[in-house]
Amino acid sequence: MSKKVVTLGEIMMRLSTPDFKRFVQSDTFDVTYGGGEANVAAALCNYGLNGTFVSKVPDTAIGQAAINHLRRYGVDTKFVARGGNRLGIYFLEPGASMRASQVIYDRADASIADVDASEFDWNAIFEGADWFHTTGITPALSDKAAALTLAALKAAKERGITTSIDLNYRKKLWSKEKARKTMSELCQYVDVCIGNEEDADTSLGFTSKGTDVTKGELNLDGFKDVCKQMKEKFNFKYIASTLRESHSASDNGWSALVCYN
Amino acid sequence: MSKKVVTLGEIMMRLSTPDFKRFVQSDTFDVTYGGGEANVAAALCNYGLNGTFVSKVPDTAIGQAAINHLRRYGVDTKFVARGGNRLGIYFLEPGASMRASQVIYDRADASIADVDASEFDWNAIFEGADWFHTTGITPALSDKAAALTLAALKAAKERGITTSIDLNYRKKLWSKEKARKTMSELCQYVDVCIGNEEDADTSLGFTSKGTDVTKGELNLDGFKDVCKQMKEKFNFKYIASTLRESHSASDNGWSALVCYN
Amino acid sequence: MSKKVVTLGEIMMRLSTPDFKRFVQSDTFDVTYGGGEANVAAALCNYGLNGTFVSKVPDTAIGQAAINHLRRYGVDTKFVARGGNRLGIYFLEPGASMRASQVIYDRADASIADVDASEFDWNAIFEGADWFHTTGITPALSDKAAALTLAALKAAKERGITTSIDLNYRKKLWSKEKARKTMSELCQYVDVCIGNEEDADTSLGFTSKGTDVTKGELNLDGFKDVCKQMKEKFNFKYIASTLRESHSASDNGWSALVCYN
Amino acid sequence: MSKKVVTLGEIMMRLSTPDFKRFVQSDTFDVTYGGGEANVAAALCNYGLNGTFVSKVPDTAIGQAAINHLRRYGVDTKFVARGGNRLGIYFLEPGASMRASQVIYDRADASIADVDASEFDWNAIFEGADWFHTTGITPALSDKAAALTLAALKAAKERGITTSIDLNYRKKLWSKEKARKTMSELCQYVDVCIGNEEDADTSLGFTSKGTDVTKGELNLDGFKDVCKQMKEKFNFKYIASTLRESHSASDNGWSALVCYN
Amino acid sequence: MSKKVVTLGEIMMRLSTPDFKRFVQSDTFDVTYGGGEANVAAALCNYGLNGTFVSKVPDTAIGQAAINHLRRYGVDTKFVARGGNRLGIYFLEPGASMRASQVIYDRADASIADVDASEFDWNAIFEGADWFHTTGITPALSDKAAALTLAALKAAKERGITTSIDLNYRKKLWSKEKARKTMSELCQYVDVCIGNEEDADTSLGFTSKGTDVTKGELNLDGFKDVCKQMKEKFNFKYIASTLRESHSASDNGWSALVCYN
Amino acid sequence: MSKKVVTLGEIMMRLSTPDFKRFVQSDTFDVTYGGGEANVAAALCNYGLNGTFVSKVPDTAIGQAAINHLRRYGVDTKFVARGGNRLGIYFLEPGASMRASQVIYDRADASIADVDASEFDWNAIFEGADWFHTTGITPALSDKAAALTLAALKAAKERGITTSIDLNYRKKLWSKEKARKTMSELCQYVDVCIGNEEDADTSLGFTSKGTDVTKGELNLDGFKDVCKQMKEKFNFKYIASTLRESHSASDNGWSALVCYN
Repeated sequence: MSKKVVTLGEIMMRLSTPDFKRFVQSDTFDVTYGGGEANVAAALCNYGLNGTFVSKVPDTAIGQAAINHLRRYGVDTKFVARGGNRLGIYFLEPGASMRASQVIYDRADASIADVDASEFDWNAIFEGADWFHTTGITPALSDKAAALTLAALKAAKERGITTSIDLNYRKKLWSKEKARKTMSELCQYVDVCIGNEEDADTSLGFTSKGTDVTKGELNLDGFKDVCKQMKEKFNFKYIASTLRESHSASDNGWSALVCYN
Repeated sequence: MSKKVVTLGEIMMRLSTPDFKRFVQSDTFDVTYGGGEANVAAALCNYGLNGTFVSKVPDTAIGQAAINHLRRYGVDTKFVARGGNRLGIYFLEPGASMRASQVIYDRADASIADVDASEFDWNAIFEGADWFHTTGITPALSDKAAALTLAALKAAKERGITTSIDLNYRKKLWSKEKARKTMSELCQYVDVCIGNEEDADTSLGFTSKGTDVTKGELNLDGFKDVCKQMKEKFNFKYIASTLRESHSASDNGWSALVCYN
Repeated sequence: MSKKVVTLGEIMMRLSTPDFKRFVQSDTFDVTYGGGEANVAAALCNYGLNGTFVSKVPDTAIGQAAINHLRRYGVDTKFVARGGNRLGIYFLEPGASMRASQVIYDRADASIADVDASEFDWNAIFEGADWFHTTGITPALSDKAAALTLAALKAAKERGITTSIDLNYRKKLWSKEKARKTMSELCQYVDVCIGNEEDADTSLGFTSKGTDVTKGELNLDGFKDVCKQMKEKFNFKYIASTLRESHSASDNGWSALVCYN
Repeated sequence: MSKKVVTLGEIMMRLSTPDFKRFVQSDTFDVTYGGGEANVAAALCNYGLNGTFVSKVPDTAIGQAAINHLRRYGVDTKFVARGGNRLGIYFLEPGASMRASQVIYDRADASIADVDASEFDWNAIFEGADWFHTTGITPALSDKAAALTLAALKAAKERGITTSIDLNYRKKLWSKEKARKTMSELCQYVDVCIGNEEDADTSLGFTSKGTDVTKGELNLDGFKDVCKQMKEKFNFKYIASTLRESHSASDNGWSALVCYN
Repeated sequence: MSKKVVTLGEIMMRLSTPDFKRFVQSDTFDVTYGGGEANVAAALCNYGLNGTFVSKVPDTAIGQAAINHLRRYGVDTKFVARGGNRLGIYFLEPGASMRASQVIYDRADASIADVDASEFDWNAIFEGADWFHTTGITPALSDKAAALTLAALKAAKERGITTSIDLNYRKKLWSKEKARKTMSELCQYVDVCIGNEEDADTSLGFTSKGTDVTKGELNLDGFKDVCKQMKEKFNFKYIASTLRESHSASDNGWSALVCYN
Repeated sequence: MSKKVVTLGEIMMRLSTPDFKRFVQSDTFDVTYGGGEANVAAALCNYGLNGTFVSKVPDTAIGQAAINHLRRYGVDTKFVARGGNRLGIYFLEPGASMRASQVIYDRADASIADVDASEFDWNAIFEGADWFHTTGITPALSDKAAALTLAALKAAKERGITTSIDLNYRKKLWSKEKARKTMSELCQYVDVCIGNEEDADTSLGFTSKGTDVTKGELNLDGFKDVCKQMKEKFNFKYIASTLRESHSASDNGWSALVCYN
């Protein structure tokens, strides 16, 4: 029997220009639907696990298109709530060579931001689940979304399910102060924490000496020190981090590391 | 010298599925930018007139794409204000045979709804202008947009410019009561009124006997009677109306009539 | 709770030319996956019912693509068996005006033709099911596929589930003699029979006077007579039929009738 | 007068996903028709030679599309036989970065596998020909296709035409034992042999010390030794080999060498 | 053995907008290559005849693309001369509903207009030929092209080959006076003449009473009278004509008639 | 107030194959409109300046499409003259890896080559202008186009406007002798000269020792020497040059330098 993994978060419509066109040049957009948590559910389904995605989308054909996009990859979407005003949108103009990619968010007033934990049946959602995953984007959307994230983490922990969170600080959505307060509460219910040194600082307030996060270079000793502090405070089983190298707008490197005991 | 026509209203992004696909089936959207007033400006440019479009769009690459779309047809866009939160969007799934077209609006909080008349220089806008055109959609967007519409109509009339309005009642945007109050004030500054019997009722409160506007058939005597009432009250020079026949979702007829003295 | 409908049959890859191109002119094919029974499951999901599709596809990325195509519309595919050699394919060149559509089948040796009833768990498949539907195409594919169809119909009837079959005689797949023998056995377990007069003759051996099925015109009295014969022999609750009118290769009419008590 | 080159082999339909999409994501396939021997004929036509392609395709619009695809590049196709069951197909999902390309073959029961040498008029085919080329894929398709390859090589040699073969061992099609037996017989009629060390082993049974063909590195001394053995046994005039370097799924290097006297 | 039909004329590049777009809206053009005489050769190949096309194209990759386009349909292009300045182009904006199609020609200085009959080997071209076909467009291109047409017709007649011409008067290319003088000379070598009453007048000077060619209606008696006159003067074996009905820009009817003995 | 920059030159239609296709393989062309001077105007508009483009295009929908293409980026096109025979065209087949890009020009007889300076109102064109830019391609098109370029440069200088020219020698359009004579006259009215050492030689006759322009490497001392000579003769304020490195047909480097006082 495949492992069941539940993820919770926002699913947005992504509209991107084809063939490296600028927004002003494009008469078509490529359309897809995603988000950090939805992508994890779909990717795990591709690897043969049972991914279940929990969210809220508007009760329109656009909301349904987002759901059916996930169904195509085998994600279980039967716990997605319907209602609210709209699906969040973001516009992507992929960069090339020296021209950077451009992202324009149009996510205010999305259905997931106007959500109540009572819209979800945690017993049904977590029945047979092995893992629960969410990110720091969801609680940043609104106080209601933060309350939902907390409720989900608590419900998972109560049922003995492993929990993970990707810190993913978004400065356009909230201040460092509010992030640190909210995320520190959430992390009490987290087993596996994903984030780099910058996130550790902005989301949880941990810092180490000699690290300039804006340089895109990893200070291994500094990271070890931060991990140690995080483990001591939150008792995380694992801390994982990715490191992206940007050679040009269309040529990137990618690596990852994990820190345990 | 070509006639200069100024139009004022909202320009939205239209995202439509190609090849009669359903929303759920489509991995691309055709993108265009338009609205009743913007389309009039572009169409008049195609006929060789000088079209000038006045609006407000967000100060982003998406707002710029909307402006440049009009520039492609030769519309003068130098008086479009920049600012506010977002460009309104609507999704279109074109119907076919027995399946009706479907439109989903995502227009709340658009830049044009958060506008102030002081953002526009009427002397520059109306310099050399022969005609000003707007619709009943713009004042329905917000009280600020209604105030802008009124200011524009007054400024045009003061300068001796012919003015026209397309009633275009939108029940999703406002009530009949609010529409009638606002539109009746605006129509004091209008020379040419465009609208069918249904609009005359919903927007201005005029009715005639024996007309069932939901049947899609024209009662000529009733329409004449309504026109007479409208002319008496507002002193319109012309009243024009279109009539669409829907043979199927993808096969329509179209005709128009004009009522004068 | 929505009704659960189970369908069983072959799902094929359809490769069609875009924009009314001939095969020889086309550098791309539009790809979709379907079949009579799979299409019914997807259509019912679109109407809000729970559609479950039972079939067998090869254990390759192509087989998975067929399954995920159905998942996109919400069809439950967890009972689709994996194995065998290949997914059947058909090529479609859509006709236009006077040029007829052209279909080329490449379906020999498909996984569904090499199937055993033991690969399916009828208890799980029919748990909570309200209706079972299949067609006369499936038993025509191979003796194994015919045995599977019979097993499924019997399993449904034993559980008190309503059953339906679309006769759908395919002369390229089997003879009238073999069809009549097989279909007559299957129809003992059928509640609702779908088919026109031609199918009634080729699949079950029923005929009425004065009917020339090649003319594409409905002889209502003849059809009533055939329905009466079919009901007497098989005790069908309903007999339904469609009638297509072909105005040109790209312009068709469609109607349907149902015969009961 | 341009040189005339005759090639013989299978032509397949290639269906590939555009824009680096996965099979499951793609609603269109790019369609082309090719194979080792057909590609050589087309490439030589592009260089100004007269390429003639000999094969067998089904007598359908799909078979015709394959033929007309070659005609587009100027290949003489008048000796292609018509008949048999189907055109072989292969599906290609081009890889990107770390994700490897994926190829799924659906070539069983192709027309070329059910072929008889008597379907071809060697006098007409080789009239004025300067060169004949085939590969080790064709004889691997079936015993009939192997007999056809042998007949073609003999007919070419009898007429004093230079012959070449690309060893191209395909482990999915036949065993090393069968390949070595068949290829050794064919190579008695071959002047120019194309293949790397791995092919020399799998197809003809030649090996040299110190070579691990799975490493993708060329052992020049080993290759020289193998060439010497091959020349002694088969009296080849030239032995040629390509070497591909795979930097990533979408970034490759390519070089070649030829061994003579 | 299939009939061999030789056609002679201009082949142009056609650039048309997709999806009923206007020129100004289109970022892509569909590309094809054709002309009255080339299309006849390709259509006859589709019907199984041997079509041979004679023309002159520039010695560039664009000229080669035109040739290879015909090869795709099996047309023999080995007698097409290479040289001159350019391939003629025409732009097509397909009409829809009330908007007429628009064609813009850019054909001046095409290679075929700068041609000499000595560039062609009539013995080789007409070896085994059964029919020769050309149109009144080719002689209208230039005096050189008219001389080529005359030479081809004479060469065909000398070899006992049936000849046909489609009158196809093009008022943008020459005057009625010049057309009548040239075409009357050419028609001495023609067996089958294709053209409607309007062409008979503009190209050959024949008229009948009671016909207004601009009305698009056929006056059968008038046409019979004109046919009689044409046969008496030129001894045509057959005279054929097409009649197009234009219901709208995108909906047309088509019929044809032939007049013999 | 943004700077106003006027540019003058030819605008051509560019037809390029998509997806690295060869001309012979492509059933569509990507369409755009551009030229050295038009591209500068559009690029400056993208940077927020007021670009005005002066040219002549045919009075057809194709000429209008070229104009509207520039309007899309905000270029002022109201001084573009209409008339003449045709819009110049060039075909582009983008190269890949080792296959070079291929460009085929079809620009003879373009409207801009048949132009008279009297068709332009320099007072209106240069009203409020800060800069005028043109290239050495325009005077190479025809004597009339050279006269227009001279008239424009004189008119700009008389009004105190900064002028620039990109030497851009095109050997297909004129000889070095004619280029040097014409360009030397034009450069008397130029403030800023753009060109590499090769252009300095072919267009103006300046050379330095030790430079082999075909090697694609910059000899800095030689370039300094040439700049000194150019400044002495023409009193240029700035001389600028680009240097392109061609790693492969689809991978290029680009740098630039400017030489002042």
